[in-house]
Amino acid sequence: MSNIVNLGLIQMTCSDDVQANFEKTLGYIEQAASEGAQIICTQELFKSLYFCQSEDFAHYDLAEDVSQDGSTVQTLSQLAKELRVVLIASLFEKRALGLYHNTTVVIDADGGYLGKYRKMHIPDDPHYYEKFYFTPGDLGYKVFHTQYADIGVLICWDQWYPEAARLLGLQGAEIIFIPTAIGYSMPEEGSTYDQSWQIVQRGHAVANACYLAAVNRVGFEVDPSTSLRASPSIALPASDDHMSGVGPNGESGINFWGQSFVADPDGSIVKQASRDRDELVICPVDLALIEETKKLYSFPYRDRRVDSYGDLLKLYSD
Amino acid sequence: MSNIVNLGLIQMTCSDDVQANFEKTLGYIEQAASEGAQIICTQELFKSLYFCQSEDFAHYDLAEDVSQDGSTVQTLSQLAKELRVVLIASLFEKRALGLYHNTTVVIDADGGYLGKYRKMHIPDDPHYYEKFYFTPGDLGYKVFHTQYADIGVLICWDQWYPEAARLLGLQGAEIIFIPTAIGYSMPEEGSTYDQSWQIVQRGHAVANACYLAAVNRVGFEVDPSTSLRASPSIALPASDDHMSGVGPNGESGINFWGQSFVADPDGSIVKQASRDRDELVICPVDLALIEETKKLYSFPYRDRRVDSYGDLLKLYSD
Repeated sequence: MSNIVNLGLIQMTCSDDVQANFEKTLGYIEQAASEGAQIICTQELFKSLYFCQSEDFAHYDLAEDVSQDGSTVQTLSQLAKELRVVLIASLFEKRALGLYHNTTVVIDADGGYLGKYRKMHIPDDPHYYEKFYFTPGDLGYKVFHTQYADIGVLICWDQWYPEAARLLGLQGAEIIFIPTAIGYSMPEEGSTYDQSWQIVQRGHAVANACYLAAVNRVGFEVDPSTSLRASPSIALPASDDHMSGVGPNGESGINFWGQSFVADPDGSIVKQASRDRDELVICPVDLALIEETKKLYSFPYRDRRVDSYGDLLKLYSD
Repeated sequence: MSNIVNLGLIQMTCSDDVQANFEKTLGYIEQAASEGAQIICTQELFKSLYFCQSEDFAHYDLAEDVSQDGSTVQTLSQLAKELRVVLIASLFEKRALGLYHNTTVVIDADGGYLGKYRKMHIPDDPHYYEKFYFTPGDLGYKVFHTQYADIGVLICWDQWYPEAARLLGLQGAEIIFIPTAIGYSMPEEGSTYDQSWQIVQRGHAVANACYLAAVNRVGFEVDPSTSLRASPSIALPASDDHMSGVGPNGESGINFWGQSFVADPDGSIVKQASRDRDELVICPVDLALIEETKKLYSFPYRDRRVDSYGDLLKLYSD
């Protein structure tokens, strides 16, 4: 009675060579397919360095047409069709001159363009100046009915919002994919930020009785806007360097923490990548478990008190 | 700069002697206070066995007035005033003849009655026939401003709903207390139900950057409506007995899994009780950590897309 689907998560380092990053990802897609993956998801903005560490008008030139006519999408569609895989690809969308989004496209296993999701929750914090680049999404939350599963997509910062996951759960999402670029960038963040990141997402999987796949970037990327920092406050012990936002030569930046993972409907981690290197996660999941879970545990739907949730539509209850 | 408050969680077995259960709880309250607890929370329906395993009209007689005039509340108020502790007590409310709620009262450290919360999400599953007894709450979600902290209360089944925790987070809850009665009652539940229970609640703590204290019942309670079961399907290995819903003599019932815990705003477990015995959890928490967390991580509030959450008010997006 099982219904196994193989997921492929591409966790990798990037360089400042966009074409090289793209080709590296295409290579991983082919490798994932050869290892049996049927639904393959990239990390957030996989074609470039995570350019949001600084506010630089030049980076607008990285944005591109992400419709089915865009050249990246066409290449991906061709590959999806050849390999018979669903592709979930995170791109920098140029919607119009002066209007950009952080967008993920979904391509079916026949190469067909199923649509796109525009990141709804946009951060703006030191090292993550996304509000400079990305207008918050205007398409809402959508479940894509692919040949292998009904999937929802969120993007990075969205992952902290139970509302976003629930809105996909209420559409029957079997798997929520979350391309991500998150890491340690400041000593103040403490040592448990990555664990909090994982726990809140495992919670979404439980609350909505679905699988959740988070695909994170890895490696240290220098903040181009800052010079060397030599403050004693960041001279952390070597063993804590991955949490400090300090690079191998003392540079300021982000240590992307990798640890891409798949959680199952009971919140267990099925597979998890390392924190420090490229990794292709191939993970079979059993969609039949979702039906079993939703029959046994009725909490995702049956007893919700929608009459009492009105204040969720307020920024604060004051 | 810390602002430490000591929590006391009373996890215990109950018998069919209501007065004995009440006195046992009063004793634990005194012990908790003597060990420094300032905010003390009972398990769900601590005065009785978990009577919802069967639908029995006779159990209506367990319900009582939970206003400040009720005798249980008066006893608790007196004790709270004497000990200078906040008390959170889960009771079976008789609101009117034929109208009952699963209700938790909050009493301040001066003995003052701060109000009550009526359980909003009511389960109805084998061994948990709560819809027979409890009309779903009509008071919504409320933060109580006690002398020691601003606290929210949920009750058991509510704990699976991110909406409920968020609605308390949006009122600035520093600690969410959740009196609970949950355990293994069927082999079908699998071995990870208790872990899922913990993960979803730790997720609430992260998403809302608050503390969360779940206070669960412990011990095996027989289902009075069933006789001995001898089906081979429940003849599980001894080591798994705590997950089987089978009592020491082969009876059907609930193995309440205890494991009362306190999670901090990063989702870490600060303290956790055992799964198999009475335990008084005394746990200091630092309320200053909430402010630090909310400053560093803006996700609970700043970037919420309340314009896009409308479908949360639907039972399903179809």
